[in-house]
Amino acid sequence: MPVDGEPTTPIRSPAGLAALLGVRIPIVQAPMTYIAGAQLAAAVSNAGALGVIETTSTQGREDLKRVRDLTDAPVAANIALAARNDPSTVDVLADAGIRTVITSAGDPRVMTGRLRDAGMTVFHVVGSLRNALKAADAGVDGVIVEGVEGGGFKNPQAASTLVLLPLVASRVDLPIIAAGGICDGPSMAAALVLGAQGVQMGTRMLTSAESPIHDNLKNAVVGADETATVMLSVRGLPTMRVLRTPTAERALAAGRSDVGLDGIPTLYFTGDLAASMANTGQVAGRIGRVEAVADIIGQTWAGARAALDDARARLDA
Amino acid sequence: MPVDGEPTTPIRSPAGLAALLGVRIPIVQAPMTYIAGAQLAAAVSNAGALGVIETTSTQGREDLKRVRDLTDAPVAANIALAARNDPSTVDVLADAGIRTVITSAGDPRVMTGRLRDAGMTVFHVVGSLRNALKAADAGVDGVIVEGVEGGGFKNPQAASTLVLLPLVASRVDLPIIAAGGICDGPSMAAALVLGAQGVQMGTRMLTSAESPIHDNLKNAVVGADETATVMLSVRGLPTMRVLRTPTAERALAAGRSDVGLDGIPTLYFTGDLAASMANTGQVAGRIGRVEAVADIIGQTWAGARAALDDARARLDA
Repeated sequence: MPVDGEPTTPIRSPAGLAALLGVRIPIVQAPMTYIAGAQLAAAVSNAGALGVIETTSTQGREDLKRVRDLTDAPVAANIALAARNDPSTVDVLADAGIRTVITSAGDPRVMTGRLRDAGMTVFHVVGSLRNALKAADAGVDGVIVEGVEGGGFKNPQAASTLVLLPLVASRVDLPIIAAGGICDGPSMAAALVLGAQGVQMGTRMLTSAESPIHDNLKNAVVGADETATVMLSVRGLPTMRVLRTPTAERALAAGRSDVGLDGIPTLYFTGDLAASMANTGQVAGRIGRVEAVADIIGQTWAGARAALDDARARLDA
Repeated sequence: MPVDGEPTTPIRSPAGLAALLGVRIPIVQAPMTYIAGAQLAAAVSNAGALGVIETTSTQGREDLKRVRDLTDAPVAANIALAARNDPSTVDVLADAGIRTVITSAGDPRVMTGRLRDAGMTVFHVVGSLRNALKAADAGVDGVIVEGVEGGGFKNPQAASTLVLLPLVASRVDLPIIAAGGICDGPSMAAALVLGAQGVQMGTRMLTSAESPIHDNLKNAVVGADETATVMLSVRGLPTMRVLRTPTAERALAAGRSDVGLDGIPTLYFTGDLAASMANTGQVAGRIGRVEAVADIIGQTWAGARAALDDARARLDA
C-alpha cells in the first residue's frame, strides 16, 4: 500500500498487481461463504495466487488463524460489509496477519479508511460503474469488477463482464481484478485485454479438488451446461445467480422459495441439493472436471499468455 | 464456399474469415429489423466491413436491390427463418447478387442446404452451445455466437459472450463471428482471444450517423448507462432485451405490455419512445456519441490490434 500523499505510478501490469497483493500470480480465489476457508485458501496461496478467507461464517473467522498452519504465503480476508462492519474486525484481521482485504456487499466508506490506516490493502467488489466510482471515492486500493454472469448476489439488470469491465477500466484509474465468467486461460486473457490486471475465480475454485464441498455439488456443477443457472430472489434477499436445480426451478416458477439460505451448509456439506440454493456462475457450463487448485492456477496463468499470443498470431496470419 | 467433399483448412484467422465473407475487415453489421437497410448496410460495406440487409420488413426486401446503387462492395442478407422459409427466397437473394446469408431465429436445417447449393455462404446465429452444434450439423459455413448481453430476442437463461463464445469455439470447428457486448477495439480483441475470427455489432451501428433511426432513440442509447436494458417478454413473443424506457419498466412491473411490437417502426422513425420496445444491447452503456460508420469500423479494427498488443506488453511489464 502506498503511503498517503506519496505520488505513485498507477498499476497497469499483472506483475504490478501481483506485487501489490504480495503474490506471484495475479489470480484471486473468490470469498465464497462456507467454502472460502483455510483448506481452499491455503491451496490457492500455496500455488502462488491469492487465497481468501471469508469472515461471514463462524468457521471462516476461525480459519483466519487455522490457515497459518497450512501456508506461509499471504492470504487475504473478505468482509461482507452489510454483515460485519464492527471496527473490532480490523483488529481481528490484523492479529491474523492479514495484509489484503476484499470488502463486498455494502458501503465501501464504512471500513476502507480504518483498514488502510491499519496498513492493509483494500479491494472492493463492484457490479456497476456507479459503485466502482463510489469505491474509488472511498479511497480503496483497487476494485474487483464482477459481471452479472458470476454466481451469488447480483443486480439482475447489471451488465456482463465484457461490458462492465472495459467501462470501469475507462473511468477508474485503479488496479482492477475481473470476476464473473473467468475460469481458464482464454477468459483470463480476455479480462487482461479488457483492462484488468488480474482475475478472480469462484465457480472454478468451488469445483477444485481442495474445495471442501460435497461431491454431489461439484458433480452437479461439472455436469451443468452454460444455461444451467438462474437469477432468483429468495425470501426478500437480493437476487442471486444459483444452479438451476429442481428446487430453484420451482422457486422461479412460483415466485417464492420453499427453502431459505439457512440450508446452504447442509447443501454444501451433505450434498442434499434440495436443502437450499447453490450459488454458481454461468462458467459452470465450461468446467469439465474436478482438478487440483495448483493445476487450475498454473494452467490459467500460462493459458492467458498463450491465448494472447495465439490471438495476436492469428491476427497477422 | 468450399466445394462439398473437398478437404479444406479450417479458418482460424480474422483474415481468413474476411476472405470468406469477401471483405477487408472481419466486422459484420447486425441485421436489425427496419434498421439494417440499404443506407446503413452500404455505409458498412463501403467502409470495408460487411453490411447486412434484413429481409423481414418489406422495406428491407426492397433494399436488396436499392443497396446496389449505393455500393459495389459485397453486402449480405439476413433471413429470419421463422418468418421467411419460402424456397423462393433463395432466388430473390441470388437475383440481388447476395453471396453471404445470415440465418437466424429458426431451424438451420430449413434453408442451409438450398442456400449453399445456390453458391452462398451461410452463417447461422446461435445463442447456446446446443444450437451451435445443431447449426454445424445442418452444414452451415460458420456461426454467429451471440451472448445474452446483446439486444433483441434472447433466451433469458442464455450465457454471456465471455462464457458462451469460448465454449462454442472449443466444440465447433467452424469460423465464428462473436456478437453481444462488442462495440470497440478492446471488446473485439477480447472476442478474438476467446476464439472468434470476427465480430458483429448491432447497438453500436444503431447509433451510427448513417443509421436511419430517429435521433431520439440514438440519443437515448448514447445517454444510457450499462444497466439501462431489461429482458422482457411482450405479448407471448420470446424474451427480448430492450432499452429500459418508462414503457418497458411498466411492462416489466406489470408482467404485461401496453404496447406490441407493431409500434416499432413508429418508435424508430418518429422517435416516440413510448410507441413500442427498442431492442438494445448492454453496450448502450459504453457508447458515448454518434459517429460515422467508417470511423466506428476503422477504430474498432485498429483498436482490436492495439488492445492485444497492449495486453501482451503489460503481461511482460
